Amino acid sequence: MTRKLRLNAFLMGVGHHEAAWRHPRTNPEKVTDVRHYQNLARIAERGRLDSVFLADGLALWGNVRHNALGGLEPLTLLSALAAATDHVGLIATASTTYNEPFHLARAFASLDHISRGRAGWNIVTSASEAEAGNFGIERPAHQERYARAAEFVDVALKLWHSWDDDAVLSDRRNGIYADPDKIHPLDHDGAHFKVKGPLNTQRSPQGRPLLVQAGSSEDGKDFAARYAEAVFTAQQTLADGKAFYADLKARAAAHGRDPLILPGISPIIGATEREALRLEKELEDLLIPAYGLAQLSGIIGLPLTEDDLDRPLPDVALETEGHQSRVQLIVDLARRERLTVRDLTKRLAGGRGHRVVAGTPEQVADQIEEWFTQGAADGFNIMPPTLPAGLEDFVDHVVPVLQERGLFRHEYEGRTLRENYGLERVPA
Amino acid sequence: MTRKLRLNAFLMGVGHHEAAWRHPRTNPEKVTDVRHYQNLARIAERGRLDSVFLADGLALWGNVRHNALGGLEPLTLLSALAAATDHVGLIATASTTYNEPFHLARAFASLDHISRGRAGWNIVTSASEAEAGNFGIERPAHQERYARAAEFVDVALKLWHSWDDDAVLSDRRNGIYADPDKIHPLDHDGAHFKVKGPLNTQRSPQGRPLLVQAGSSEDGKDFAARYAEAVFTAQQTLADGKAFYADLKARAAAHGRDPLILPGISPIIGATEREALRLEKELEDLLIPAYGLAQLSGIIGLPLTEDDLDRPLPDVALETEGHQSRVQLIVDLARRERLTVRDLTKRLAGGRGHRVVAGTPEQVADQIEEWFTQGAADGFNIMPPTLPAGLEDFVDHVVPVLQERGLFRHEYEGRTLRENYGLERVPA
Repeated sequence: MTRKLRLNAFLMGVGHHEAAWRHPRTNPEKVTDVRHYQNLARIAERGRLDSVFLADGLALWGNVRHNALGGLEPLTLLSALAAATDHVGLIATASTTYNEPFHLARAFASLDHISRGRAGWNIVTSASEAEAGNFGIERPAHQERYARAAEFVDVALKLWHSWDDDAVLSDRRNGIYADPDKIHPLDHDGAHFKVKGPLNTQRSPQGRPLLVQAGSSEDGKDFAARYAEAVFTAQQTLADGKAFYADLKARAAAHGRDPLILPGISPIIGATEREALRLEKELEDLLIPAYGLAQLSGIIGLPLTEDDLDRPLPDVALETEGHQSRVQLIVDLARRERLTVRDLTKRLAGGRGHRVVAGTPEQVADQIEEWFTQGAADGFNIMPPTLPAGLEDFVDHVVPVLQERGLFRHEYEGRTLRENYGLERVPA
Repeated sequence: MTRKLRLNAFLMGVGHHEAAWRHPRTNPEKVTDVRHYQNLARIAERGRLDSVFLADGLALWGNVRHNALGGLEPLTLLSALAAATDHVGLIATASTTYNEPFHLARAFASLDHISRGRAGWNIVTSASEAEAGNFGIERPAHQERYARAAEFVDVALKLWHSWDDDAVLSDRRNGIYADPDKIHPLDHDGAHFKVKGPLNTQRSPQGRPLLVQAGSSEDGKDFAARYAEAVFTAQQTLADGKAFYADLKARAAAHGRDPLILPGISPIIGATEREALRLEKELEDLLIPAYGLAQLSGIIGLPLTEDDLDRPLPDVALETEGHQSRVQLIVDLARRERLTVRDLTKRLAGGRGHRVVAGTPEQVADQIEEWFTQGAADGFNIMPPTLPAGLEDFVDHVVPVLQERGLFRHEYEGRTLRENYGLERVPA
């Protein structure tokens, strides 16, 4: 068997579970401590994981009264992680709605140089109104955000390609550092951007960063089909996972492309199933109902109150401008499993709509193998409930099982993120 | 004597001299190599220097055919340097004309966390037309750029102050992570920016980064007087240096402020004066006249040709939108010393208008001491002609002389950049 799993560690403060910061396995004072994140990246590298990933938003989301928010900016943080690691890929989220292509293209080229070829960009269009408020504009409509995103990436690609691979000669004797004929202005003039170029950072080791995308709306899937080399997605059931996988692979095939599809999974790991369930229960017992209620209200756009806790989820009018696919997933989950609002907030607390699997290392590996071999995943976005402990559990106990089964690498194949993901270096 | 010099290492590729990349003491392939810059930062730290500094522009300036351009983006680079050092301050240049306050405030807060209190921001307004071309706009007028810069910094200050020092409680037992009453929205609504806030990164170790400014136009000096805690400046003569120092200190005093003034100096160091002059000559002999001519033409806004090389500098109409103070300095230098255009390009090759001093460690230290004691400087922005060798020369041979004379620290006073610069932590 040669097809191998791709495994990404999704790093989120002191853990993905909403109550992680209250659990004795974490230290919530670490959310702004670079050494915490450097430790996480080294653990991921010890497990030969492909990459670590930082989500991001451009506003203080959620109720900081009840969660450990206010962490670090992804690009600066990943650069510090690059300095502490050698192989693991480094994927930062950055918005196309509130940035300029020149800045982002340059920062990612720089991160790719600094990491010697390990940079990845999770492209987001920033759905929330709170983010718009920090940039003095009204939130652009969904389609408009994706139209801007497409042009943004087109410009970024041109900027990354503005220096040919062989532009730099470094000929000291004749005083010729570079051949200007191999460094190209873009003169891009489009609906959203006008950028002369070239980039003022030389072509980076990977040519350009790995392109990642995570939106699962119709626009999001079409965007992923055109641009993404890896897709993060939230899928609750194997059937949904297979349907999404088939749909996105087909859309991408129409563009002659074949992105890796990596559903999220939050593994709650115990030496025994009972131990895993106990950890899950401990975390659940630390939940603050008002927090989960506010989170749920915010995502689905309904003002839920404590009176709703023990009732079924009310009807949700599918808002078309926000996080479309996530709202649909939550409504489906509540209906399918006939959950009360209280149950639903508990189910979402583990992974915000991503799948939570509690069990032994073998049971977690079984789930991973099933999705991988049944056509629902090329790998997984691992979302440990607590950090660092939950990531150590995965690396020390689940990874060896996956390796033993021939599903995962024992050593890194290459030096760059693209090499580890099995992708070619981008030609000039 | 208790007043101490502040010394900043201005890092610029493989050296400040235009021909540095051709000299055997450098390796031009290092301009995109993070290990090169980490080495420089460690050398600076070995010399107990206050800080390292990265200039920046948002376009590919100068003729890359004849110079080693296309290096790394400052904020990502400094973050990687933070991970490789413990004490030295880290100052990045970033533009107020082509950025959003929310992004920059957050990136600097993040760098301040990552470095545990060593971040500084050199505030620039981006004078060149080439930069405007990469952001799809016409270059704003000089005054307009400074008006935007002032509002930009005001917003950034509010964002850095949006979390009180004691906002985070981390009370796990009661489930209270932070007190929302101590985290403040800005609701800023001004001529240039509308920003709701708060910042989504917690208050950083220094409260906010050290604020540095380098423009010496009238608008630039007024801006520095209001905001800067350290001022970089180019001054050719002691008289000019004293005049600038007195002028800026007076302007700042009117605001109840007292920024540190740090003129640039490029020290060409030899064990003997003859050795220093030989090194200067070696670098001069590697200059490419067409490159220097194009650089000079670009700065002063005159299309000079090779026919002009052996003539005096033609009259320059002082353009009011570009680098006003630097053009004035160059014109003054040419007139005062009756330089031909060829001579002038050689004089500018060492430090682009900054003072070049060739000599023994004692002679360099004498110059530094003179300016420091005569009211022209609180310290210096050290611009080594080659890197790393020129910085090693300074740290290993000039710093000990300055220490012996009681002018410079033997050990760092504190952990943060502000502590080393002798400034208070910013209160909430």
